[in-house]
Amino acid sequence: MLKVGIIGASGYTGAELARILSLHPEMELVLATSRQYAGKSLATVYPHLQQYRDVIFEDVELAAMGERVDVVFTAVPHGTAMAAVPVLLAHGVKVVDLSADFRIHDQQTFEKWYCPHTAVALLPEAAYGLCELYRAEVKKARLVANPGCYPTSVLLAVAPLLKNRLIDPATLVVDAKSGASGAGRGAKVGSLYCEVTEGFRAYNIGKHRHTPEIEQEVSLLAGCPVTLSFSPHLLPMSRGILSTIYGVMAAGVTEDDIVSAFDAAYGDEPFVVFRGMDQLPATQEVRGSNRCHIGVVQDRRTGRIVVVSVIDNLVKGAAGQAVQNMNIMCGLPETMGLLQQPLFP
Amino acid sequence: MLKVGIIGASGYTGAELARILSLHPEMELVLATSRQYAGKSLATVYPHLQQYRDVIFEDVELAAMGERVDVVFTAVPHGTAMAAVPVLLAHGVKVVDLSADFRIHDQQTFEKWYCPHTAVALLPEAAYGLCELYRAEVKKARLVANPGCYPTSVLLAVAPLLKNRLIDPATLVVDAKSGASGAGRGAKVGSLYCEVTEGFRAYNIGKHRHTPEIEQEVSLLAGCPVTLSFSPHLLPMSRGILSTIYGVMAAGVTEDDIVSAFDAAYGDEPFVVFRGMDQLPATQEVRGSNRCHIGVVQDRRTGRIVVVSVIDNLVKGAAGQAVQNMNIMCGLPETMGLLQQPLFP
Amino acid sequence: MLKVGIIGASGYTGAELARILSLHPEMELVLATSRQYAGKSLATVYPHLQQYRDVIFEDVELAAMGERVDVVFTAVPHGTAMAAVPVLLAHGVKVVDLSADFRIHDQQTFEKWYCPHTAVALLPEAAYGLCELYRAEVKKARLVANPGCYPTSVLLAVAPLLKNRLIDPATLVVDAKSGASGAGRGAKVGSLYCEVTEGFRAYNIGKHRHTPEIEQEVSLLAGCPVTLSFSPHLLPMSRGILSTIYGVMAAGVTEDDIVSAFDAAYGDEPFVVFRGMDQLPATQEVRGSNRCHIGVVQDRRTGRIVVVSVIDNLVKGAAGQAVQNMNIMCGLPETMGLLQQPLFP
Amino acid sequence: MLKVGIIGASGYTGAELARILSLHPEMELVLATSRQYAGKSLATVYPHLQQYRDVIFEDVELAAMGERVDVVFTAVPHGTAMAAVPVLLAHGVKVVDLSADFRIHDQQTFEKWYCPHTAVALLPEAAYGLCELYRAEVKKARLVANPGCYPTSVLLAVAPLLKNRLIDPATLVVDAKSGASGAGRGAKVGSLYCEVTEGFRAYNIGKHRHTPEIEQEVSLLAGCPVTLSFSPHLLPMSRGILSTIYGVMAAGVTEDDIVSAFDAAYGDEPFVVFRGMDQLPATQEVRGSNRCHIGVVQDRRTGRIVVVSVIDNLVKGAAGQAVQNMNIMCGLPETMGLLQQPLFP
Repeated sequence: MLKVGIIGASGYTGAELARILSLHPEMELVLATSRQYAGKSLATVYPHLQQYRDVIFEDVELAAMGERVDVVFTAVPHGTAMAAVPVLLAHGVKVVDLSADFRIHDQQTFEKWYCPHTAVALLPEAAYGLCELYRAEVKKARLVANPGCYPTSVLLAVAPLLKNRLIDPATLVVDAKSGASGAGRGAKVGSLYCEVTEGFRAYNIGKHRHTPEIEQEVSLLAGCPVTLSFSPHLLPMSRGILSTIYGVMAAGVTEDDIVSAFDAAYGDEPFVVFRGMDQLPATQEVRGSNRCHIGVVQDRRTGRIVVVSVIDNLVKGAAGQAVQNMNIMCGLPETMGLLQQPLFP
Repeated sequence: MLKVGIIGASGYTGAELARILSLHPEMELVLATSRQYAGKSLATVYPHLQQYRDVIFEDVELAAMGERVDVVFTAVPHGTAMAAVPVLLAHGVKVVDLSADFRIHDQQTFEKWYCPHTAVALLPEAAYGLCELYRAEVKKARLVANPGCYPTSVLLAVAPLLKNRLIDPATLVVDAKSGASGAGRGAKVGSLYCEVTEGFRAYNIGKHRHTPEIEQEVSLLAGCPVTLSFSPHLLPMSRGILSTIYGVMAAGVTEDDIVSAFDAAYGDEPFVVFRGMDQLPATQEVRGSNRCHIGVVQDRRTGRIVVVSVIDNLVKGAAGQAVQNMNIMCGLPETMGLLQQPLFP
Repeated sequence: MLKVGIIGASGYTGAELARILSLHPEMELVLATSRQYAGKSLATVYPHLQQYRDVIFEDVELAAMGERVDVVFTAVPHGTAMAAVPVLLAHGVKVVDLSADFRIHDQQTFEKWYCPHTAVALLPEAAYGLCELYRAEVKKARLVANPGCYPTSVLLAVAPLLKNRLIDPATLVVDAKSGASGAGRGAKVGSLYCEVTEGFRAYNIGKHRHTPEIEQEVSLLAGCPVTLSFSPHLLPMSRGILSTIYGVMAAGVTEDDIVSAFDAAYGDEPFVVFRGMDQLPATQEVRGSNRCHIGVVQDRRTGRIVVVSVIDNLVKGAAGQAVQNMNIMCGLPETMGLLQQPLFP
Repeated sequence: MLKVGIIGASGYTGAELARILSLHPEMELVLATSRQYAGKSLATVYPHLQQYRDVIFEDVELAAMGERVDVVFTAVPHGTAMAAVPVLLAHGVKVVDLSADFRIHDQQTFEKWYCPHTAVALLPEAAYGLCELYRAEVKKARLVANPGCYPTSVLLAVAPLLKNRLIDPATLVVDAKSGASGAGRGAKVGSLYCEVTEGFRAYNIGKHRHTPEIEQEVSLLAGCPVTLSFSPHLLPMSRGILSTIYGVMAAGVTEDDIVSAFDAAYGDEPFVVFRGMDQLPATQEVRGSNRCHIGVVQDRRTGRIVVVSVIDNLVKGAAGQAVQNMNIMCGLPETMGLLQQPLFP
């Protein structure tokens, strides 16, 4: 049984990690940190987590964690994680970092979109934890950068098309929509029920920090530098991301080419389901699960391919994928603890 | 591995049974009936049930089911179940019936509120499947009447008070609120998104068919015939029931009396949590789980006790409790397959 | 054209006042105060109020307001209003106060539930602005205490029954449910979208500050001191209050008695609609309007009368009723500016 | 006072027309047809329309309507309107048709996307009622084709860019999202609360019938035939459309060019607000009003312009724009009866 710590456990991602771990047969949550809620139990702060009446939030020294845990999930903001991770690694702990700090390989790009980087030496060894693309790297890593929620939904959707040269990467437009849990549990006016319900807005068009992360991976898949349009929107719902992705079709592409590309990519994947041509997925059908569903439209009138993908941003877009990565890093079955089914309705 | 059939599997309760069974280590869903969707897979009708791409809805003869299944859940409307159950029992199948047909012991009362009863001979042997109260009866039964969603939320809340004579049963007022999934998946104008969202209404005050079921059990607990006010309301949400129950406190009742009554009743129960005095529960904290959370207020100003209970109407109020009953009937651990955690947010 | 000021204009109630005033033919909003947003236009803080691009939030001295406005709405928290109102009145301004500061006639009761009162001298002259009950008093007043949202919904529902002695006041139970806008625009975790959506909770049972306000008016209507149970709940929606009210029927009461009582009370009222026996109203049908809809059930089985009333808490429960009061105070037609229709769906 | 009839008045659009007309000083609703609800009052079918307790749904002969009304709104499905409109016009009635039947100028295109056309002779004279672009044509028309909801949101957003050649029409991608009221009040499983809430899906990508309508008008604005990608999505909310539109920027376009184009187009329009560069609008801020808000992002990194527009699909996207058109046709002030403010929160 692996002893698990969560740094920054009081946010929605931390709570979701706790929820998933509660049914994991080989991992046990033994340490959860939170400055704000130190001294309170997880069950007090999150009444749905009654099984954690005895796990108390602590405000603990990082150095002291090494002896108490085998593996750690860091669920703190960018900038904070880069300070914690080197200390944890120095104590022999495996880390899945859910912040952005180790996702961008290029220091300059990271610092342009985020902030100065203080753990540059770790950038080369951090594996980018999109398991379906980087399983081998994750297996060998002691540090995995868990992908962003939007990038997960986008990259799983376009990878088969880019790898098989079915789409022109220079024409990519990504129109993405996320539920409100993506903004976290911080008390902000913009996240209030009355501000979000029965409404819909775009935000940060062309400026969202997930843009360079998506471009890095799309460029690697395409084999050339790619710049793309990325427009996030805020949905009046808690969980779920749906990305609609447009690109000009390569010459002569057939429906068979598309189907084959997706079948080859995901036919054996436990968590990615290609729903088929013209089968458009809905976020409801993956809610609460680690799945990604994908549908594709080949629009001959316009010469474009449109891909639609859905994930639960807190599971496959965060906590679930983090556990999936940790399973791989620790030599456990990849799906262990992750077979909770979607909750519908 | 028990072979399981669901009769009337295409509604929300049927889908929820399928979801729960998919992770049950000793039960396997092998037969799902639906007239409307015969020939389609469960995964086609419910895309969140991808694990059931090979289970096809059938419109099957009841008599033919006996050889294919060991146990059956009937999730059909009242009136229909009473025709199916005798056939199934005759073939040696254990049945948990989720309709109202076997919940009311008294034929006359049943027929006053529902319709003529055509399987009266089975009424005496049907166990009322509120496990926490009737575990012994369920264990011995071949037919269990799964309680209604509202009655489950109400009875768990008041049983400790009535048993310990802490409250005057003649003064009981039950103000109950349910999410929209309680109305099922039928295509009715009143269930449309635009009619339900951002709104709230009362319905069937004093006339709801769960009234005699609640009164039957409250009378048994109180040891005398009880008539009570029951007012259901429709919440703008999918899952969840919250019942607020008012009663005049018996003379001299202390806070300790109340706490002791609930601790004694539920201290060892796996699915019922007494949250404590003045700890008011929320439906969110049990969503997707088989739990019931209860909080109590002792209001000395008015001399009343107010109890608030929450359940997920599709789980503890239907499919989850049905599996719990079936586990007991089949000698399996009571919590088997039912440890899915609540989904929050 | 009356010049209008709003003190504390940046909350939801202030914004709703601005919305209503924008179409009022005899009132013009000329002054809106807010410390937090001073210097910003109303249209910047509330993009739906584009007609107010030139009205700028100010952090202004109260004494300086007297010369700029004829009438003022105070939409600040209790405790703050009692400091502002005397200054405004001294400058000859008519005031409708939307806080609780002048609702409770009895100083001791106020101070028990709220805080010390520093403008006790004004308590006797403040009219309780439930127009349908106190129209004559409001007409003569220079200070009106606008009723609380819950009390408005409760008192309109029970007044005809109490006045006509159709119900036993000692048995009253009020189960009330409110949308999230009742909690205001403050950035609190409990008001976040993800905490509120698809969930329902009770709060402050037996302790809510609207209890003494309801009891004061119910006692006056009943002609004797009344203590009652009041249980508020938080609905997953923005606007609307529904109150379900239970009481034991007086001996010999007929359906005609009930219908006559409501017809007599509200037959000529512009904003209160008695929907009829067994016609249960929904909050959706009054959303965005100044209306109150009421339905009644006479439950002979239990001997109780159940009344259900709905209002929009921001309109009839706050800003709309405030304008209605100001119209009366200023000798304008009572419905002026208040005929916006409900928005459905 | 103009006497107004609504054909097909029982749907959401019909109800919204009734709501708007109730406050229109020069129009009076005297005739509302509905086969399904014939004999019931509008207030019975829609309790929010209490002012229409005396207007009864009728199942009336079209020919008989001519003598009772001056103007008619047809709110029936495509195919049905084309049968009714010629009869109405023959009786001297002015008509605003809210169906698609007279929106597409080219018969062949119409029949390819919809159905055979049986009133082809009227196609040339029907004005396309996007008032901001075709005010002069509407003024002279006796038949106005009220634009589709999606096309309204898209065309207002791109017209200034296309007219001023700031964007390459061949690269247009329209990602549009609509609330559930767009699907009408029909009782369909896909429109149920439980299917829509807390979820999001794409539908009819590349196949939606509003595509040829958008392409017709974009082609006219661009001065050349345009094919574009149009992807509708279903939002978990009742009212509102947000369209996000992408196009490659023409060479040398400056921010000033964009701002000037929008200011010139909409500076004097009563219902269209250009919110400014990087000011992204939200559907909440136009809910219940006849407004369209527009924001623009000039993304130099990708060389694209992104426009975001919001409307209330039932008002500016249907009933409100229909009244706006009728005002123009009848020589009334264009904003008459349409100044209801947005409802927020």
